[in-house]
This record gives sequence, structure tokens and C-alpha cells, in this order.
Amino acid sequence: MTQTTVYAPSPADPAAFLAEAAALLGPRGLTVDADLMAPWLTDWRGRYQGAALALAQPADVGEVAALMRLCSQYGVCVVPQGGNSGMSGGATPDGGGHALLLSLRRMATIGPVDVDNRQVTCGAGVVLQNLHTAAEATGLRFPLTLGGKGSATVGGLISTNAGGTQVLRHGNMRQQVLGLQVVLADGSVLDSLTPLKKDNRGFDQKQLFIGSEGTLGIVTAATLKLVPGLADRRVVWAGVESIQAARRLMLHCENAVAEALEGFEVIPDPSLSAVFDYAPDMRHPLQGRHPWYALIEVVADRASADTLNERVEAMLAEAFEAGLLDDAVIAASETQAEAFWGLRETVPMAERSKGPAKQHDISVPVDRMPDFITHASAAIEAEFPGCHAVAFGHLGDGNVHFHILAPAGADAAMWEAGDGAAISTRVHDLVVEWGGSISAEHGIGQLKRAELARLSDPASVTVLRTVKQALDPLGLLNPGKLVPLDHELTKG
Amino acid sequence: MTQTTVYAPSPADPAAFLAEAAALLGPRGLTVDADLMAPWLTDWRGRYQGAALALAQPADVGEVAALMRLCSQYGVCVVPQGGNSGMSGGATPDGGGHALLLSLRRMATIGPVDVDNRQVTCGAGVVLQNLHTAAEATGLRFPLTLGGKGSATVGGLISTNAGGTQVLRHGNMRQQVLGLQVVLADGSVLDSLTPLKKDNRGFDQKQLFIGSEGTLGIVTAATLKLVPGLADRRVVWAGVESIQAARRLMLHCENAVAEALEGFEVIPDPSLSAVFDYAPDMRHPLQGRHPWYALIEVVADRASADTLNERVEAMLAEAFEAGLLDDAVIAASETQAEAFWGLRETVPMAERSKGPAKQHDISVPVDRMPDFITHASAAIEAEFPGCHAVAFGHLGDGNVHFHILAPAGADAAMWEAGDGAAISTRVHDLVVEWGGSISAEHGIGQLKRAELARLSDPASVTVLRTVKQALDPLGLLNPGKLVPLDHELTKG
Repeated sequence: MTQTTVYAPSPADPAAFLAEAAALLGPRGLTVDADLMAPWLTDWRGRYQGAALALAQPADVGEVAALMRLCSQYGVCVVPQGGNSGMSGGATPDGGGHALLLSLRRMATIGPVDVDNRQVTCGAGVVLQNLHTAAEATGLRFPLTLGGKGSATVGGLISTNAGGTQVLRHGNMRQQVLGLQVVLADGSVLDSLTPLKKDNRGFDQKQLFIGSEGTLGIVTAATLKLVPGLADRRVVWAGVESIQAARRLMLHCENAVAEALEGFEVIPDPSLSAVFDYAPDMRHPLQGRHPWYALIEVVADRASADTLNERVEAMLAEAFEAGLLDDAVIAASETQAEAFWGLRETVPMAERSKGPAKQHDISVPVDRMPDFITHASAAIEAEFPGCHAVAFGHLGDGNVHFHILAPAGADAAMWEAGDGAAISTRVHDLVVEWGGSISAEHGIGQLKRAELARLSDPASVTVLRTVKQALDPLGLLNPGKLVPLDHELTKG
Repeated sequence: MTQTTVYAPSPADPAAFLAEAAALLGPRGLTVDADLMAPWLTDWRGRYQGAALALAQPADVGEVAALMRLCSQYGVCVVPQGGNSGMSGGATPDGGGHALLLSLRRMATIGPVDVDNRQVTCGAGVVLQNLHTAAEATGLRFPLTLGGKGSATVGGLISTNAGGTQVLRHGNMRQQVLGLQVVLADGSVLDSLTPLKKDNRGFDQKQLFIGSEGTLGIVTAATLKLVPGLADRRVVWAGVESIQAARRLMLHCENAVAEALEGFEVIPDPSLSAVFDYAPDMRHPLQGRHPWYALIEVVADRASADTLNERVEAMLAEAFEAGLLDDAVIAASETQAEAFWGLRETVPMAERSKGPAKQHDISVPVDRMPDFITHASAAIEAEFPGCHAVAFGHLGDGNVHFHILAPAGADAAMWEAGDGAAISTRVHDLVVEWGGSISAEHGIGQLKRAELARLSDPASVTVLRTVKQALDPLGLLNPGKLVPLDHELTKG
């Protein structure tokens, strides 16, 4: 859909700006060619269609800084973009065509990997998969991964504080960032790439730019934490009777193998059926069916690999004895382990193939998640007859992807604009009632900005807007994203 | 020394403010009694002597919020204080007597400990040692400790992002904070105590208040992370030939036991001699003397306790074989382990007893620390004849306490004001040359504010001042601490 709301005002003299920007960046660094710009003006899910004054692709931090000085001078707004694989439209400009689309993809230098200190400094444009490869080549590992790893960039992952399937042990992107280089709205450069483990000179300024979706500054490089490479892993597929039982099983696993528990995902039986409908060649790991499944990954580095098998077997044996699971199987090979993960990763596509659905990336306090799923599913299905609620995802983090499928035969566009929108409002209300967050890992972008305004603590919205105003007084950075607008504020 | 510089301006009507504050807080919550205030108007090291309009001790967050609204209304500055055990004068008011000293010590509620989620919510006034006790009672552990644990409070630890001896594995206070409750300058309350593991609604606002020393808001409560209780530990005392050798040994230990390595402290032989001079009943763990010693702690929880002994022995055997250490002994009992740690903890007092010294809490990139110590010690000793440089501390974090002892017979006051001050300037210059921080863990407070202004990246100082101005436009919160003043800014 084309964007109708325009957030970036028209600059006074766009032609003069473009001439200066072209001189600064050269032909590789700036284009106004519609065909070259097109792929980057729509988000990958096809929800938003924007327009831009030009596409800038600076080669280094000096060019980004000079460009921002130029933008300040001419009043040109900037939409920073990494791999264009975000989930909330945070990197898609509005439809006005007045903003500059600023791609960091050319700034893709990795390393060298500092093996002793287990860290690496990367340009913002480094693609996640390439970072994985570079770390693994030195026997280390970058412990964050997600579906979009082939396109997501370091800068985008930081700006959105990306999550993924390893957050349980290693945390979100925030926890991986040791240092940042950021270009501020006025073109000054904040550089904390120096890898100091301890530095207590005031609050940690780099935190302002992690998760703020390019609204406070432009991430140009980062020093990232690495962890010892994986020597081995065991992947378990377990059947349990309820989501509550899955939660009890997870607590048991945490106690049994502590930090070696790297993943704990839950999948309900209907979602698994959807997977088999969608991909008939996939195979069920267990003989019988169970209401819920847990996908459990336990890992070992070199120092702990010898005892991995016995620890996982003991963990499962104790769980059986305590009645914490109904059936379970350990993947017999790496191929089978990949197949188990393949089932989990196919859930979103399988659900999507069944018809229109509203997806919600939400979290509540970890221990309330099972009851929330039971309660919210029943509430939505009662209030919107014919709809079907599906929950799957990262139980260990309190983050579940909560999808509501439209009634059979519903017209997608009509349903999404009508009941679908009402359902999302209701789901968000429920999340807030349960002390949760309307964005667990996908960010706010333009998708949830109004909901953030509607549902957040007013003090928190005020801090966000105050800091935004202070660091970007001209409002040049990613307008219309994340930060609630004046008219969206709740009346206090 | 009495404070001569006054940062907090005189409010227009202090009597009216005091009357309203007394009505709000009651007799337990407000006093102007000089004897009751006296202990809290001097920092524990006796470097700063301040004065206050009154001492406020609110009972809960509602009272703190109401008090801040009153302060905003009357233009009264506030100096928040926890255990008054800071190292940089951050909690001592100036000598003008116009500011309100705001003690959080009455807000000392702990818990209940949430064992499943391994977290606990505490009032800002909870003393660290009491938090340790509460966590241990449930089989868990709060993994941050330091010398002042009997007086340091949760609020102060957060406001200064305190470190300690377990940072190598568990990180600073910042890493322990899951949620915060903060009263802002205008009396509004920012509350993120809800324990969400994943929440991606913009940047992490609580980070603004960790390490900002009460200049941006007043921490009133926190949800803190706990870790599994220790089932066992091994403490090793090793002799090595140089600080470079200590660094190589540390890398070996990290590779050998990974995250089980919880402490790695270094002590030079002259400091150990100073300990024996100061405390003659303490005993040397090894037969012979070595240029440097490493104190190594390896820990195990229930899941890994069985194999702890063999892992530590293998780690040391490999280190011997590889020539990474000259001699080492594993403490044979918990009593002996405590004695090893006692040696390390006595170093500061033993050094202090030898005469005047300038102490520096600094960090450089971890891998440069050994060479920095060698280089900086030689430089200072050459430039200031008769002085003696001593370095000890947390090698694993790149943080070493770097002390310069005055020449024998020097007059303490004269030396500290003359050569001592020049030495600190020179040490800080060297730290910056080596890419380090002038405050590794003790914060800035009033002690290093001018040095922060002199030596920090101007962009970083600008961000600090901009955020301060935005969140505390009236300048009410802890004036004169951390944030460089106009006249201290370097000319750009």
C-alpha cells in the first residue's frame, strides 16, 4: 500500500542539496534512478511503499558525517536503512519523496577478529551471515541469529535491537554490542569503538542508539562480542500436555544444564499440523501426537563437550521421572537436528499459507506467558467467532508470536482492515493488562507507533520525545518512526 | 576539606519549602538537625565536606515523587545519597547549604525473591550485604560484590554502575539491572520494574539512569538479576614472572574453564610485601617469591560441581607444561581460600599505610594493560623521582588500580597539592593516549568532572550535557557532579 501520511517536510532547495550531495558522494554514492531505488522503497513484507529524494550509499563514516552536515544545512530528512528486512516498516520512507534514503550497505568491512579479546569491529553494512562466517573461521561464534540473516545488517540489527532464537542464553543484540560509532543529526561522530571492558564515565551513551531505530543517530560501525565456538550440541524434540507443562519443563532444563540451555521454543500441535500440510515431506520426530511440543537445544564448547551427552540424557531422564514430559527424542545426527529446527522455522510460513492472519510479536513476564496464551486465545476466539489463535516461539524469553487466523473464507483485505485491526487492538490491550510489551523483538517502526502512544506509560513516552527533541532538534532522523507524534499523545 | 565552590543556587523561599517538605515527609522523613546530618555531609574518605538545607529520608516512591514536585516548584536542588560509600564525592553536597540531601536508605524492602525467574525487586536503600543474604537464602546469588558491601546500597550501586571483583564473569551493576523505577526531576515516575525479558519499544530508557550518578533522575527501586548459587569454588594463588605472563595465563584459564573463571586479580610482589608489613600475621601462599601473583577463582554451580576439581587441576597442569606460570597452589579449604582473598583485599590499606599516594582507577583495552603498566610506571617514576608506581587489581577487565606513592618523607598535604596533582594529570594523559578511561569503576562525581571535560571526546560531552539539559532543565539533580560545566569545556 502506498504511504499517504507524509512525515518528512519538503526541503527549501532540493536541487542544490542533491548537487552538493552528488559532489560529496560521487556516482557510486548517490543515485536518483527510480529503478535502482525501487527495491529499497518497499519493506520486504510489502506493507509499506515509500518514495525518496535520492538513495545515498556513503563509503565511510566521514562521508556519513559530511552528508548529515549537509542535511542539517538544507533541512533534508534521512531514513537510514540496512538490509531492508525489518518487520515494522522502520526503514521505509514515507510517500512524500522528500527524505533521503541512506543505505549503509557499502560499509561492510569485517574485522580482523580479535580472538584473545573475543570481539570484532564491523561496519554497519555487514550482513549477519558474513559475520557468522568470519567468527567461525577463527573458532569463535557470533551468538545471534534469525531468519533474515542473509540480508539483515549489523547496523539494522543494532538499531532495532534484534532478537532471534538464541536470546535465552546470549541476549538480544544489545547484549552483543561492546562499542558503537554513531553519526549524530548534526554530523558529529560519537565513537566508543575502543574495546574497554570497564568504563564508568557517566551513563552508557551507546545505549541511546540501540533499539532507537535510527531516530537518534546513525550507527556506522560496532564492536561486537564473540563467544567460544560450538563444539557440539544436542537438539531435543519433546511432547508435553500443555503450555504450562512446557514452562515447567523449561525450568527443569535450566536447573539441570544451566547456561548450556541455548534454545527453548514451543510449538502447539495445530501449528505442527500446518507445517505438515505446507511441507508434506517433513517428518514428525515422535510416534504419537501431543498438545504441545518443545524444541530444546543444549550446547557445549570445547571445555564442556565431553560431558554433553550424559548431561542431556540425565536432564531428560529426570524430566521423565518427574512427569515433566510425555515423550522426547534426541536428534541422532546434525542432519536430524537441522530437521527439528526446520519444523520450528517453517511454522510462520505454514501459518501464513492457511489464509489471512494478524501476527503479534508480544511478550509478557516469563512466568505469566503460559496463562496469558490460554487466556488470550480463549478471549479472542470468543470475541471474534471463527478466528483461531496460534502461539509459538521463544517461551524462554516470555516472547511468543501470537497469530490470529481469520475465519475460513474471509476476504483478506476486508478482514485485515476490519476485524483484523480490532483484533490487534484487543491483543495489545490484553498484553498491557498482563504487564507485557506490544513489541517483544520486532520494534515499533511505523507499524506500532500509534499503539505505543496509546498504550505506553506517559512518562516513558515523554522521556522518548524529550531525548529525541534534544538530540535531533530539527527532526531530521527517520521521521514518523518509533517516536509518537503530538496528536497521538494520550491526554494526561 | 570544606567545599568552596557552590553549585546549588539559593532557593527563593527555603523556609516555605521546608515547611511543605516537613508536612509531606513527617518527622522521620525530614530533619535539619546538624548532628543527625553530619555523618552524611562528608564522604567516607574524608575528601569532601558539604552542607545541606535539610536531610530528607522519604519512605516510598510516592514521597520521593511528591518531594521532587516540591523541589521543582521551589527551585531546590537535590543530592541523592545511598550508603555514602562512593569513591568520587558523587553523593556529597557542595558547601553552600542550599541543596537538599536526599537519602534513600529508608526504602530498604527486599523481595520476595522470584526463584523461578531468578530475580528480585529491591528498594534503592537495600544494603548490598542484605541482598546477598536474601538471595543465598533461596539457593541463588547476587553476583556483584565489593569492599563497601556493608554500606553500599542498591540505588548507589546502580547510579554509579559499580564494579567489584566478579565483573570478569558477571559484568558491572549495569548487567545486573533488569528493571528500574526512577523519579525524574519534575516528579514523574518512570517504572520498568515489570520483569520482561524481551521488550523492544525504543531504546532502553533505564540505561540513562545507570551510571549517571543521580544527575538525570533518582533511582528508587530496581529489579535485579540473580544467578544460581555457588556449589563450590577453587581459589588459586599463582606466581608469574611478569604482568605480561599474567595476561597469558589469564587467556589460558579463560580457554580452559570458560565462564567458570570468575576472578582473575593481579598483585605485584612489592604490594604483597606491603601487606605483610601491614598485617604480619598473614602468610604467603607459596614457598618462594615471584615478581607478580595472580589470584584466580574458578566456580561451579550444582550442575558442574562434580568436575570442578579435575577441571582446575587440568587447567593448572596445562599452564605449568606450557610455561605459563612458575608456581601455584590451590587453596586446600574455604578458610585458606578466604585467606588468599584477604591478601588481595588488604593491598589498598597496606599501600595507604606506607605514606601519601595518588590513586587512579583506570582502564585501558584489556590486551594493552600489561604494556601500559610497564610503560606508565617507568614514565611516572622517571618524571617524578623518588615516587613509586604500584598496580594491582582486575586484570581480566582491563581495570587496574594504579597508585603512585610519594617519595619517602614527603609532607602529605604539600605533596598531594603539588606533585601529586601533576602526577594525576600525567597518569590521565597517559591513559587517554593508550585509548583508556580515566574512570574504570569509581565514577566521575566531583573528583574527576574537570578531567572528564578536559580529556573526553567533545561529542560525548555534548551528548551528556544535552541529555542533562533535556531531562533536568532546571538543573535540580545533583549539581556539580559528573556533567562538565560551561567553563570547563575544551575549546573546539
